Amino acid sequence: MNEDPGESFVIETLTRNTRPDPGWLLHGPGDDAALFQDGSALTVDAMVEGIHFTQDADPEDVGAKLAAVNASDLAATGAKPMWGLLTLSLPNPLDQDWVKAFAGGLLNALCEMNAHLVGGDTTRSPGPIHASLSMGGQVVGNPLTRSGSSPGEEVWVTGNLGDAAAAFKHSDAPPSLQKALHSPNPPLLLGPALSEAGLATAAMDLSDGLARDLSRLCAASDCGAVIDPKRLPCSSWLSENCADPLPYQVGFGEDYQLLFTAPKTRHEDVLALGGQLGLQLTQIGRTVCGGGARLAGQQWPPSWTHFSENA
Amino acid sequence: MNEDPGESFVIETLTRNTRPDPGWLLHGPGDDAALFQDGSALTVDAMVEGIHFTQDADPEDVGAKLAAVNASDLAATGAKPMWGLLTLSLPNPLDQDWVKAFAGGLLNALCEMNAHLVGGDTTRSPGPIHASLSMGGQVVGNPLTRSGSSPGEEVWVTGNLGDAAAAFKHSDAPPSLQKALHSPNPPLLLGPALSEAGLATAAMDLSDGLARDLSRLCAASDCGAVIDPKRLPCSSWLSENCADPLPYQVGFGEDYQLLFTAPKTRHEDVLALGGQLGLQLTQIGRTVCGGGARLAGQQWPPSWTHFSENA
Repeated sequence: MNEDPGESFVIETLTRNTRPDPGWLLHGPGDDAALFQDGSALTVDAMVEGIHFTQDADPEDVGAKLAAVNASDLAATGAKPMWGLLTLSLPNPLDQDWVKAFAGGLLNALCEMNAHLVGGDTTRSPGPIHASLSMGGQVVGNPLTRSGSSPGEEVWVTGNLGDAAAAFKHSDAPPSLQKALHSPNPPLLLGPALSEAGLATAAMDLSDGLARDLSRLCAASDCGAVIDPKRLPCSSWLSENCADPLPYQVGFGEDYQLLFTAPKTRHEDVLALGGQLGLQLTQIGRTVCGGGARLAGQQWPPSWTHFSENA
Repeated sequence: MNEDPGESFVIETLTRNTRPDPGWLLHGPGDDAALFQDGSALTVDAMVEGIHFTQDADPEDVGAKLAAVNASDLAATGAKPMWGLLTLSLPNPLDQDWVKAFAGGLLNALCEMNAHLVGGDTTRSPGPIHASLSMGGQVVGNPLTRSGSSPGEEVWVTGNLGDAAAAFKHSDAPPSLQKALHSPNPPLLLGPALSEAGLATAAMDLSDGLARDLSRLCAASDCGAVIDPKRLPCSSWLSENCADPLPYQVGFGEDYQLLFTAPKTRHEDVLALGGQLGLQLTQIGRTVCGGGARLAGQQWPPSWTHFSENA
């Protein structure tokens, strides 16, 4: 979700629902996934040719990424993925090789995360390829939401930030960065582990860039956050090849890393959990009273997206 | 699902999965909805501009029909709808009036069936409007599937057949038939009631026409069926205005009526249940040993779809 006024209008129109939540619903629209009282988590994400991937994109990557971005949303609530429902709309004439490679990427990714494709709908498309996956999972501990943080906590991220942005902007970026953009590998085990251990107070996945996503977490948690730009984790290619990595790290998105907050007193426990899971965890700042999401000593650079360039 | 060779290829490629079903899955792809051991039912259906609706279609009808066709799939398994997840892809510039009317139709239809929109994803579309809804529900009794019938049972349908086909073919068809095509009203209470009462042995919703759909039920149940064409329920407009109503009644689809089988001994119970729910139920034939789905005394007329005309 970007701060596209058109997109905001659509979301507001569809969620302007005066009906009371039913007893079984813990969180409806607005978080990374819908959460039910029984621990079920549900999400949906679409990938559209010409918007989210180009005509010459590797269809295996498209299938794998569709599973990854949905699982990333589930993991941000602490859920382990279980099932997927696919909608696939394809132009005439059918490109069977595309379908085979896409299916291979999707099914393999689902298999690796121990999730099953349980159904779907396939239609013709008079326009671009359109693939949408709904995914459901189960939270083991208390579900993580964007709204549980409070002032005085630590702000953490997994992995490096800005690799996908760098690959989008620089076609000569190395394969590891290209992979971050075209076939991301979100840290799916961390959200469930944080939830089970009761370590995180709030969490969300980084899909629209730290500046936008942290602002949403702050708004949902009714607190502010101050980030130290020098602490933002950066791949060596990005730091060596881009004079100013910051716009890549905070302004683009598609990182599919986990952003979360945790009490200061649990700092060592968080690091230990990262060690157990083989994940790089970086404390990038702290939550404060009000003031939204801020960078220490400077303004956020302008955000940019592939949406505004393609759509 | 039509017997489009392209569509069959896509479905086979995506379901050619050698992984064993997990313990929680009762029925995966192939039935009207996926069924879990805990009674959950899941389905997804998309509507694409230029394929399932025209550019000048009433957006309120598009939203309402999207909810109806998904709920029809759930009801055919005996499930009552609970939640929906929406993917909506819209071209630039955004038509706010279209969005408002679509949302009104969708949310009102969900409200009437006591279901809640719990999340979604909205994207830009470089092509047509694309709307996909995943819907989940709960089965109260034993879930209904396509595979539970056996020879010697009665074959039943709800409502009239062919109204949507007539409206598609004849622009002068009266409003009630236009409504059947553009804003269908599936008998959502019957499936759950049949399931709870243990009255039906197999069921599915009629989306692709009786000829194709009954063939699928027969194949899944490993039996045949003989249908009496004179018994097929028909609206008065169709019988008065079309010299041969049969191709409309069996060959087009979009009826969104319920097709089910029940033991002969429960004939009166079935009629009584229809009476309680205010539904027209017609016994149109019987199941037999093998031979697929047949019409008594004649061949099935050729099937036709709006897909082959538009896509």
